Amino acid sequence: MKIEPIGVIETPFREASGTPIQPSRARGTRGTVRIDPRFRPGLKDLDGFERIWLVYWFHLRPAPRLLVTPFLDTQERGVFATRAPVRPCPIGISAVRLLAVHDEILEVKDVDMVDGTPLLDVKPYVPEFDCFPGSKAGWFDRSDSPREVADGRFDVRE
Amino acid sequence: MKIEPIGVIETPFREASGTPIQPSRARGTRGTVRIDPRFRPGLKDLDGFERIWLVYWFHLRPAPRLLVTPFLDTQERGVFATRAPVRPCPIGISAVRLLAVHDEILEVKDVDMVDGTPLLDVKPYVPEFDCFPGSKAGWFDRSDSPREVADGRFDVRE
Repeated sequence: MKIEPIGVIETPFREASGTPIQPSRARGTRGTVRIDPRFRPGLKDLDGFERIWLVYWFHLRPAPRLLVTPFLDTQERGVFATRAPVRPCPIGISAVRLLAVHDEILEVKDVDMVDGTPLLDVKPYVPEFDCFPGSKAGWFDRSDSPREVADGRFDVRE
Repeated sequence: MKIEPIGVIETPFREASGTPIQPSRARGTRGTVRIDPRFRPGLKDLDGFERIWLVYWFHLRPAPRLLVTPFLDTQERGVFATRAPVRPCPIGISAVRLLAVHDEILEVKDVDMVDGTPLLDVKPYVPEFDCFPGSKAGWFDRSDSPREVADGRFDVRE
């Protein structure tokens, strides 16, 4: 299976370390999504949505690992029980706030990806499909970590 | 960019037509996710989560389209303002309910994909990261369609 990016995500973050770990902890940081102009007609009606899913490629991630200590925990967990970037198939999803659509440019906030991240897809955030309040969340529910940004634990090492 | 599936999703649905359009309209339909055994350690701790994201490949989708009439509407919308499978990068995301984890097999319900769908990733559903109640949802908020299953509009045509 071959995939091609449909655009790129621009953010203020030059490296993984210091990048917010999730939109919910990004303190409203602004970003810009540049879609390839040939896909511009596909953005019609997107501006009615308050949030959108960005589906993207963890382009800076090192080799996959099956056990990781997540940013919000102190114990090793299976990678599929975390949102860590070191996944076998390095795809990330983030529900960011959509501020404006101009031509093929999306102004967004709550970005949690590194600058230059290849964008694979944009989907509308629909509460009926995506929002399950109170859904039990394993180790995460026992975490009280106030951490907001990544450290270097998932950086590529020489 | 090349991606390889990490497993396969088994459901009762043999073709797109008749498959639920979203987990929220799947009436609890059960499915089985078979993960490649070499990734089994990555499933540690997943069983504490009530819901999981399945990230998958729309393997039956026809050529991409930029304008589509979604299942829950009667007007053409930009494909990125819909969850239709005919996307330039044919990746789907669905938050399904996790019932049990046995070895490398996940028993799930609320499945909305065709049998044999290639699985790309599993992520834990975390309300803090994923749940935004009341987020405005454009054309979808004006839809009152009770439709639950797909018709053949996105089938591959000869």
